[in-house]
Amino acid sequence: MTRDNVKILDCTIRDGGLVNNWEFSTEFVADLYRGLCEAGVEYMEIGYKNSPKLLKSDGAGPWRFLDEAFIRDVIPKKGYTKLSALVDIGRVDENDILPREQSSLDLIRVACYIKDVDKALELVEKFHSLGYETSLNIMALSHVLEHELVEALAEVEKSSVDMAYVVDSYGSLNHKDIEYLVGVFKKHLPSKTIGVHTHNNLQLAFSNTITAAEHGAVFLDSSLFGMGRAAGNCHTELLVSYMKNPRYELRPLLGVIEKHMLAIREKWEWGYIIPYMIAGALDEHPRVAMAVRNTDEKDKYTEFYDQLTSVETAAPSKKRE
Amino acid sequence: MTRDNVKILDCTIRDGGLVNNWEFSTEFVADLYRGLCEAGVEYMEIGYKNSPKLLKSDGAGPWRFLDEAFIRDVIPKKGYTKLSALVDIGRVDENDILPREQSSLDLIRVACYIKDVDKALELVEKFHSLGYETSLNIMALSHVLEHELVEALAEVEKSSVDMAYVVDSYGSLNHKDIEYLVGVFKKHLPSKTIGVHTHNNLQLAFSNTITAAEHGAVFLDSSLFGMGRAAGNCHTELLVSYMKNPRYELRPLLGVIEKHMLAIREKWEWGYIIPYMIAGALDEHPRVAMAVRNTDEKDKYTEFYDQLTSVETAAPSKKRE
Repeated sequence: MTRDNVKILDCTIRDGGLVNNWEFSTEFVADLYRGLCEAGVEYMEIGYKNSPKLLKSDGAGPWRFLDEAFIRDVIPKKGYTKLSALVDIGRVDENDILPREQSSLDLIRVACYIKDVDKALELVEKFHSLGYETSLNIMALSHVLEHELVEALAEVEKSSVDMAYVVDSYGSLNHKDIEYLVGVFKKHLPSKTIGVHTHNNLQLAFSNTITAAEHGAVFLDSSLFGMGRAAGNCHTELLVSYMKNPRYELRPLLGVIEKHMLAIREKWEWGYIIPYMIAGALDEHPRVAMAVRNTDEKDKYTEFYDQLTSVETAAPSKKRE
Repeated sequence: MTRDNVKILDCTIRDGGLVNNWEFSTEFVADLYRGLCEAGVEYMEIGYKNSPKLLKSDGAGPWRFLDEAFIRDVIPKKGYTKLSALVDIGRVDENDILPREQSSLDLIRVACYIKDVDKALELVEKFHSLGYETSLNIMALSHVLEHELVEALAEVEKSSVDMAYVVDSYGSLNHKDIEYLVGVFKKHLPSKTIGVHTHNNLQLAFSNTITAAEHGAVFLDSSLFGMGRAAGNCHTELLVSYMKNPRYELRPLLGVIEKHMLAIREKWEWGYIIPYMIAGALDEHPRVAMAVRNTDEKDKYTEFYDQLTSVETAAPSKKRE
């Protein structure tokens, strides 16, 4: 598939940080950046630009609270790949954000649930006025009624934001859902670029991402070896290999996987794991499944399924003395 | 997705046996059969009906050389799920095959490469005359030129075979390829039922299978937890969960995965593993990747990629003293 206008955004450090509490070595992040540059990947999301004043750190690695001096230490000289950071509503101190010409970052993405789109767009305007490319990532779209989505998209269309993302937070969407949502976004956001961010609960992350691209999504999120929260994301190496555009090179990514990802995967867990599959099939947030994976009950699949499908209680209330 | 006419064929024992040399306990096979019956899965492929006289056994488990008395021992009372066996051209002794009314088997599938379709159809006629449902599985379709395929399909259409399968042996096809091939099969086989058998090298096995179903494939192969040669197959639990038909139940399959598949996966390897991904992306048979996975070089991904993409030699010639 050749899509000259497609842009791949690797979010290994940002979404993968949700797996390992951002415990990435600077060597790994620097190697990943070099690999992405050589592979022709357009963007690397190097973490969250949340403020430690507004969010408990819980011993999180530095990629959760990105600091400009620190980024420059790790990536002193930028190459082909642009850098992005994600911010969450209510967790970012706007005064932390430098004007773009003084920053290593090129793109700032704001993630929010549908109810917070207005707040998110206020942040977007701020970042836009500082010179950044901007994106709005509306999460959990599988739980949003269409009239509410259309109303929100009208606000998005009027804003300065560059990109709006279809986000399959629960990894529950299939190709028809993705085609449908990209269509809704395209219809109501004629002046915006559309992106897609998928999760792999049902082994559909890659397939959904290429379906989105075929229907007009331009920004495609992915992570190396799929490293991302719970079931993980679309794999960057699959996307780079699939897109026939000559600027993409698979080989440098294989080098980074070989050097780093196997050891990281030994220590941390993500991917196709049955409780995440169950959560995806039931269109549920993976948080209950993630909690179960940290207990001795982690492989009691039928019990977990019974809890999630019980009509008496949506969330499991484990009898754990 | 509701497809009343879809039939799922679980080939865990047959294709998964290519992973563990058919070292499945009778307890596991009996539990899997019960689980598939309860889950509403229509067929279980319980192994190969090859003859030990025509094929070296290499210590393979009994599921490679199915014996009627043995099947009856393991599954004394059949339930909802029908049983099938696969035979390879030149490895089956036709005199081993009982008439269907004396057999536990309902369906015999013949696998062949395109050049052997005529021989395969001879076998099909024999099994058909003994009363079995029959299927022809044409392997490695990604390496077949269309004029040759169309010629073969003309023979298939004239034969007594019930089903013809689109087989993505190398796990290299995407949804457009699958849609295209199912279309070719439907056009040239108007009187036959179409099936699909996928491999998961590019994490597209499930997606390709549901794409095939949407375009008219009726028989959908899958294996529990994806267990099959190299990257494995479409996962039975995903297919059962996706098809909204009320006869399908996910829960019994979760029980079998929980009880058996994790221990099997601990001991044996299949699934999304980078050398298989590389082989799939390059549309190559996984045998070279499988060989590499049995050496100390198993995680040298760039080296493996360089070997497979070298113009001097298609197959790696390792310097291993």
